[in-house]
Amino acid sequence: MKKIPVMEIFGPTIQGEGMVIGQKTMFVRTGGCDYRCSWCDSAFTWDGTGKSNLMTAEDIIKQLKEIGGDRFSHVTISGGNPAIHQGIGKLVSSLKSLGIKTAVETQGSLWQEWMMEVSDVTISPKPPSSKMETDYDKLDYYIDRLKDQHVSLKVVVFNEGDLEYAKHIHERYPEIPMYLQVGNDEVESVENDSLISHLLDRYEWLIDQAVASETLNDVKVLPQLHTLVWGNKRGV
Amino acid sequence: MKKIPVMEIFGPTIQGEGMVIGQKTMFVRTGGCDYRCSWCDSAFTWDGTGKSNLMTAEDIIKQLKEIGGDRFSHVTISGGNPAIHQGIGKLVSSLKSLGIKTAVETQGSLWQEWMMEVSDVTISPKPPSSKMETDYDKLDYYIDRLKDQHVSLKVVVFNEGDLEYAKHIHERYPEIPMYLQVGNDEVESVENDSLISHLLDRYEWLIDQAVASETLNDVKVLPQLHTLVWGNKRGV
Ligand code: SF4
Ligand code: SF4
Repeated sequence: MKKIPVMEIFGPTIQGEGMVIGQKTMFVRTGGCDYRCSWCDSAFTWDGTGKSNLMTAEDIIKQLKEIGGDRFSHVTISGGNPAIHQGIGKLVSSLKSLGIKTAVETQGSLWQEWMMEVSDVTISPKPPSSKMETDYDKLDYYIDRLKDQHVSLKVVVFNEGDLEYAKHIHERYPEIPMYLQVGNDEVESVENDSLISHLLDRYEWLIDQAVASETLNDVKVLPQLHTLVWGNKRGV
Repeated sequence: MKKIPVMEIFGPTIQGEGMVIGQKTMFVRTGGCDYRCSWCDSAFTWDGTGKSNLMTAEDIIKQLKEIGGDRFSHVTISGGNPAIHQGIGKLVSSLKSLGIKTAVETQGSLWQEWMMEVSDVTISPKPPSSKMETDYDKLDYYIDRLKDQHVSLKVVVFNEGDLEYAKHIHERYPEIPMYLQVGNDEVESVENDSLISHLLDRYEWLIDQAVASETLNDVKVLPQLHTLVWGNKRGV
């Protein structure tokens, strides 16, 4: 059985962003990513500053139950890019057989067959400010395989260039629920009050952009709720 | 044709709460409510302090287009309680035929057949702090008719009593997506910074309650985003 490098397991807490925003959930954060986004808020999963444990699906479920008891029915598998780990398939199917729903977020650069078993898949292609290139063949394949599932697209927006990219993505896949998320450009800030007011200003800016656009009509515009509540603290 | 008393039409802006949180949408706010919630944040729709215009569905759509141009594909009909107006049926079906989605929120006290045509229905039964009584026969009927549609339950929570009520509602209708929303107990506040920090504290409290509960597992816990961004200002 393929083991999974796990950086942290925590919860229950709430999902702060995207298609299941507000959902009470446990988090399993896996290590490793095939991208190097300039503004990655979980660079410790791939830049060598974090430490992972190799765990089986069974180990992970045991630890989820130790920490979460009977207080959860939803598990979010985050990263890094979880899609680099084949072993997650066993985790997803075991959770499913226990009646526990799952959510995954990935940039859509690597396909895994287990994606088909995940309750909520967020595909978050990376805009120009990340300095990454989108592989549209891979993205097309992702959307094509998942289009009849509970799937969404999410683009993090830091600036006008990112907004143009988001419009392009929405026009390319008009049938897929589309989320615009405010980029957190102060991932190092520990000054929570000024961080909150800055992020709410940026959120208002992003709303104004969507409101003014004829392309971005059927979209949802969201902040990161966990950052508003807990700032840049990890593991909450 | 039955006319509709309209208090305000505005947008596009975003839906700040509930099942379509973040959605870019226009708002049509109707007058009148069969309830008198102690903390109603739109009491001007029923307490005589606001003014409404009697409008046909056609008038409303004309005004939506005047204000929103081609920059919307979603309309939220709010109140008051929109379910007191039979005439909304024509509005919903006309919007549908134009390819425009609709959302409605109601406490579930009065049924209208046009509910079946609405894209997203939020049923928000009122907890004890509102001083209103829930009519469970009516609520059962609502859920029964809408259970195969895109429907959700939302309970606004101000205190422990409301939380117990929310648990009871969730246990009674376990299959219906359940939203817990932080009550805004400072609807008069114009001091935005202190309002924001107060509401985020209350939101964290509500998250903690949900996290600690074995009953409230498959729930979403959300703040009101529009209040975080715009405070208690109306019409944004
Ligand atoms: S894809 Fe995600 S985890 Fe990977 S570098 Fe980019 S932001 Fe970080
Ligand atoms: S049901 Fe809604 S509109 Fe009516 S009084 Fe209560 S909060 Fe106000």
